[in-house]
Amino acid sequence: MAQTAPAEVKEDFKPSTLNQPGKEYPMVNSQGYARFRVEAPQAQSVVVSLGLGGRGGTKLTKGADGVWTGTTEGPMDEGFHYYHLTVDGGVFNDPGALNYYGSTRWESGIEIPAHDQDFYALKDVPHGNVQQILFPSPSTKTSRRAFVYTPPTYGKNKNKRYPVLYLQHGWGEDETAWSNQGCAHLIMDNLIAAGKIQPFIIVMTYGMTNDVRMGGMRNFSINAFQTVLVDELIPYVDANFNTIADQAHRAMAGLSMGGMETKSITLNKPEVFSHYGLLSGGTYSSAEIKDKAKVKLIFLSCGSKENAAGVKSAAEELKGAGINAVSYVSEGTAHEFLTWRRSLYQMAQLLFK
Amino acid sequence: MAQTAPAEVKEDFKPSTLNQPGKEYPMVNSQGYARFRVEAPQAQSVVVSLGLGGRGGTKLTKGADGVWTGTTEGPMDEGFHYYHLTVDGGVFNDPGALNYYGSTRWESGIEIPAHDQDFYALKDVPHGNVQQILFPSPSTKTSRRAFVYTPPTYGKNKNKRYPVLYLQHGWGEDETAWSNQGCAHLIMDNLIAAGKIQPFIIVMTYGMTNDVRMGGMRNFSINAFQTVLVDELIPYVDANFNTIADQAHRAMAGLSMGGMETKSITLNKPEVFSHYGLLSGGTYSSAEIKDKAKVKLIFLSCGSKENAAGVKSAAEELKGAGINAVSYVSEGTAHEFLTWRRSLYQMAQLLFK
Repeated sequence: MAQTAPAEVKEDFKPSTLNQPGKEYPMVNSQGYARFRVEAPQAQSVVVSLGLGGRGGTKLTKGADGVWTGTTEGPMDEGFHYYHLTVDGGVFNDPGALNYYGSTRWESGIEIPAHDQDFYALKDVPHGNVQQILFPSPSTKTSRRAFVYTPPTYGKNKNKRYPVLYLQHGWGEDETAWSNQGCAHLIMDNLIAAGKIQPFIIVMTYGMTNDVRMGGMRNFSINAFQTVLVDELIPYVDANFNTIADQAHRAMAGLSMGGMETKSITLNKPEVFSHYGLLSGGTYSSAEIKDKAKVKLIFLSCGSKENAAGVKSAAEELKGAGINAVSYVSEGTAHEFLTWRRSLYQMAQLLFK
Repeated sequence: MAQTAPAEVKEDFKPSTLNQPGKEYPMVNSQGYARFRVEAPQAQSVVVSLGLGGRGGTKLTKGADGVWTGTTEGPMDEGFHYYHLTVDGGVFNDPGALNYYGSTRWESGIEIPAHDQDFYALKDVPHGNVQQILFPSPSTKTSRRAFVYTPPTYGKNKNKRYPVLYLQHGWGEDETAWSNQGCAHLIMDNLIAAGKIQPFIIVMTYGMTNDVRMGGMRNFSINAFQTVLVDELIPYVDANFNTIADQAHRAMAGLSMGGMETKSITLNKPEVFSHYGLLSGGTYSSAEIKDKAKVKLIFLSCGSKENAAGVKSAAEELKGAGINAVSYVSEGTAHEFLTWRRSLYQMAQLLFK
């Protein structure tokens, strides 16, 4: 997760941008070091799960004032990281940080400023909205939640209709991930303001429908989620939003487990989606695509610390078979959200052309 | 916060409905007792902040397996409660519970089932949406966040326009409170489905604009928030949503500190709002209302464990002066969210008649 430690730690630490309002710690410096401060005067041990890979995180040290402090041994990768504290053997969140749903729990989050963070920054541009919808799901006998990003122009011209990207989170995450950790709405607002894309809608819902939380992935079946997505959510979105409700204007993408879901569902339902994206979520081979004319784009990506060669060669193989495939590798990142923010930024510019 | 303890604790505990997905603890029983379970094998002390009033919360006991458990000494009031853990002197959240922003931090939340919980339950009825908007705020030099509830029929008939309620949270809370803790969208969906109200829009934004987080209320001035609300948010909402953009169709209400803000702003800006609501947030006297003809409704409420007599007598005094004032007292509740859920349920039925 971290790079080689430089000789000297710069003392220019600032509060992480993901801290709870008014909280000073955790802090990050310009080199990517993270520094923590936790009050637990009677505790015997406080360990932060973040740190150099394989070294068991960062052990904090108790000062004379009963406050535990510590700094990562080296700089962290740029971007968003989940973490938690272990206090006397119990797992808790850092009271200074905001929480993000990952690893099937609300974890603490910290942001190491990225050199290219401008593309997901909150800027003074027209902003779209993120709507929480509750859609009826007969197959799961409940109302299910989804979030819908509508671009800034949405609704201004009541006759204008938009393509839709269905965008899935990873294992242990939920439908809040792409907005909270992923900044998907800000990435879209900025791309639209810069004139780099034609606006489209993004729909994000919970993809662990058959409850793989506890059993991990080994009992996973796509059927339950495919029913929710294709038979329940898409008709609801098309009935309630100004969408262009056809295959040519409908994309599906996902990160990690969401990529696996995307692959299964797009291959099962080629008549529903035309643009496919797997973000650190595997690859397609041309042999798996039954009707190549139906596929307008396959986008494959990952971080440079993941299987970049596999993603690149899969895209080459698809291109050789006449399919419009694009690969993207995020430099200096692993299986984490900066990889996926950058992937969305790249993919969005290729969709619905 | 709690009532007299019954002789026997019933062993019918179930997971709180506000637990993180898949988490068994905290649990609640049919009498309103809460039971906690926290893993922290090397800790020397784990205390839950919830418990009988004035007794310092509930001290958990460590078992032979290193797990801390304990049950409140008596039943809790019905409804939502914030709480946290103190582990070896440090304040942390319960890893089993979802988090809610209150007391200027994300706290753990627990729900004691209320006998009347049906009015805020997620039911199989048409659901409105809750939209996150980012509106430009020149006075604070940033884009500010608000949430907008639009009723189920919103947008179906593109020419239909709706009244708007501006609804404020309390001190230490934020714009997420009325949706997360307050279930405002579910209360509205259920009222609309039952035909008890005509649909309206609700707008919720952050009311601690001049940052009273650290200094408490003593340095509070309404000016900064009034500018954001009246000069920035309302014009944005009227420009971007299908509102009826006049005084007769605009209400403001708030809980606790939000009530104080409501009082100040409605008295300062009688030309902007016609319906006022103070929920555990003080009272008006008729002498404070300059132009009584401009006020269509004053709604005053609180819990029966708060100053119910004050709320009732203030409403009587206003009525005596010819103002349409209504008081409501939530039975068996204190300065907590069940009081405010019930108050919204009552107030919504009186607005925009």
